[in-house]
Amino acid sequence: MLTLDMIKDAQEALKGVARVTPLTPAKSLGRNVYIKSENLQLTGAFKLRGAYNKIRSLSPEERERGVIACSAGNHAQGIALSATRLGIKSVICMPAAAPISKIEATKNYGAEVVLVPGVYDDAAAEAERLVREKGYTFAHPFNDEYVMAGQGTIGLEILEQLPEVDQVVVPIGGGGLISGVACAIKSVKPSCRVIGVQAAGAASMYASRKEGHPVKLPEVSTIADGIAVKMPGDKTFELCEKYVDEIVTVKDDEIATAILKLMEDQKTVAEGAGATPVAAVMFGKVDVTDKKTVCLVSGGNVDTTMLSRIIARGLSKSGRMTRICARVVDKPGSLVQLLKIVAGTGANILDITHEREERHTDIGHCLVHVTLETRNAQHVDDIDMELRAHGYELLHE
Amino acid sequence: MLTLDMIKDAQEALKGVARVTPLTPAKSLGRNVYIKSENLQLTGAFKLRGAYNKIRSLSPEERERGVIACSAGNHAQGIALSATRLGIKSVICMPAAAPISKIEATKNYGAEVVLVPGVYDDAAAEAERLVREKGYTFAHPFNDEYVMAGQGTIGLEILEQLPEVDQVVVPIGGGGLISGVACAIKSVKPSCRVIGVQAAGAASMYASRKEGHPVKLPEVSTIADGIAVKMPGDKTFELCEKYVDEIVTVKDDEIATAILKLMEDQKTVAEGAGATPVAAVMFGKVDVTDKKTVCLVSGGNVDTTMLSRIIARGLSKSGRMTRICARVVDKPGSLVQLLKIVAGTGANILDITHEREERHTDIGHCLVHVTLETRNAQHVDDIDMELRAHGYELLHE
Repeated sequence: MLTLDMIKDAQEALKGVARVTPLTPAKSLGRNVYIKSENLQLTGAFKLRGAYNKIRSLSPEERERGVIACSAGNHAQGIALSATRLGIKSVICMPAAAPISKIEATKNYGAEVVLVPGVYDDAAAEAERLVREKGYTFAHPFNDEYVMAGQGTIGLEILEQLPEVDQVVVPIGGGGLISGVACAIKSVKPSCRVIGVQAAGAASMYASRKEGHPVKLPEVSTIADGIAVKMPGDKTFELCEKYVDEIVTVKDDEIATAILKLMEDQKTVAEGAGATPVAAVMFGKVDVTDKKTVCLVSGGNVDTTMLSRIIARGLSKSGRMTRICARVVDKPGSLVQLLKIVAGTGANILDITHEREERHTDIGHCLVHVTLETRNAQHVDDIDMELRAHGYELLHE
Repeated sequence: MLTLDMIKDAQEALKGVARVTPLTPAKSLGRNVYIKSENLQLTGAFKLRGAYNKIRSLSPEERERGVIACSAGNHAQGIALSATRLGIKSVICMPAAAPISKIEATKNYGAEVVLVPGVYDDAAAEAERLVREKGYTFAHPFNDEYVMAGQGTIGLEILEQLPEVDQVVVPIGGGGLISGVACAIKSVKPSCRVIGVQAAGAASMYASRKEGHPVKLPEVSTIADGIAVKMPGDKTFELCEKYVDEIVTVKDDEIATAILKLMEDQKTVAEGAGATPVAAVMFGKVDVTDKKTVCLVSGGNVDTTMLSRIIARGLSKSGRMTRICARVVDKPGSLVQLLKIVAGTGANILDITHEREERHTDIGHCLVHVTLETRNAQHVDDIDMELRAHGYELLHE
């Protein structure tokens, strides 16, 4: 079972390896809200801590043979960098369709990357096969005391940086991060609340807690790929039952809004998983009134090709961008008339498409798609009403 | 003339008002490269420093009447927040087409915003008129000793945070920031080089230095809107001549790449102007070999609706995304064949458009636009060659 001593031991070992990441006030989220920026950790995520603590604990024989992991994400990079620093061979199995940026980053940290056709489970099976064939040590991403002890060092840092902390909000995927952090916090300061956050589309720990035992979800779907885990571990489940006060969930739109908020107000880049605690605070899942609250922003490795879409979604969710689709009569001047009304509402036009060939449009009509920059949700409603008042039929997209 | 004492005096006055922003190593840019993060300053940019130092210097009569500025950017927000903190009325003139986000932010800091039809010069004329009519004090964005002294406090902070600094790279628009910073640095440590960076599309200080006097450019065009200034001030020009060792320029594509690099590696959001020093280092305009170099990231207020486009441009410039357009015969199977070749090169397809109706396409042919995720510039070239080897005609976009 994980203990405070193991976490303190990990903290010693991580000196000079992992960064002590900043804890900064985030006034725009609330007077008492702080951010612990593990997105500024080496490799861009907290996973380095647990990975290094695991690998340094291997026996000389295990070190000789090397380690293997299955991950297309932050765990892969954490294992790769840690193994390289300790002079140990590392092999990472990934699904062949993993983003090129993740493959390149993992290789650059010194790992041998094995691309396995199929999905995550196929890559995991290949990793198991290689363990049997080559004698590598398998490094589990979360269900491992050494890994959890490494992640727990973040809890000790928070207590050092903000001793008066009242609650800590932590993302949950498999549960390794929160198990370590909660164990550290509750062992040192039992009065501090620890709240877990899951993506609504991958709420396996939430479901498991309800059932009273680890539950496997048939499928998971969320933009927070770092915490898209079908089933928590038995060890992490038990530790969550013991130390975590409450688990809440956030939706993808809320996560996208939080990513945008962090970029605009804190000028910091969080990945989906990392933004979930901020989403929980923004959307009232966690009460921050008179409570010094730390949001653990666990990582910042968001695929840049996906970031544009997240930005668009966040702008839309917060009423700062909207897309309308109107049916207009296909004759000269009808587009101009529509745009005049839109301009009168004070919205900026970002993009227009005017199409004649939609199958579902009558002959004699066409569809105009307009993307607008707007002030807020009220402004979006006003534009909608104004257009309907002028007799436009709006099709929702 | 600006003096070190004025800057020290400003530093005293700014205690508790402006943040001492972090100076952090940026290893991915080079072993000796550091970032001074003024994007983490209150209001998201350094302008607060100069604005506050200006306003606090006003006489009781001037304070009574209020201040006015003309800006749709960081200067507006700096003035608004400073005036509000000092209990003084502030009026900001902006071109009516200013981004909604900037208007809202400025209002939220407590200023009265006057939207003036037309361009920047029209807004400036209206501000002048209001100065005459209402007796407001006009707060110039750069050509003012108090403003420059406020910005100069960043130079003192850099010397405190990294006494062994060898060179500092600073964005130049009107020249207020670099005048203050260079005066501070050269007065305390003359051996430290100060290098200015301008956007190639708005290189007015660069041109002025060549001519030996302030020059007005007929027009400016750059994604770095914070430094799109047609003409430097007479005071800032003189101080640059005295203190700045060298001025270099960077292109928009280089700036976009630098913004992306800062997001991906440093997990930090910079605006175009703020990213120019990083662009200068990345593209070899500044030699950082064996020189401890500080890049002053001056601000982070990039319009999020523009950020998606910048990301796309940065990905493309660094060879991580490419758009190809190929002519294919309009018959069943020809698209599949093209995509097979593309897939064989290991590129991920992000987006496809298949169009039959281009005016410049022969009947019997159509155009396929494909957006691909790629590894690097070499990979892009390889795909190009592979397609040409199979007889495809590629049209460049």
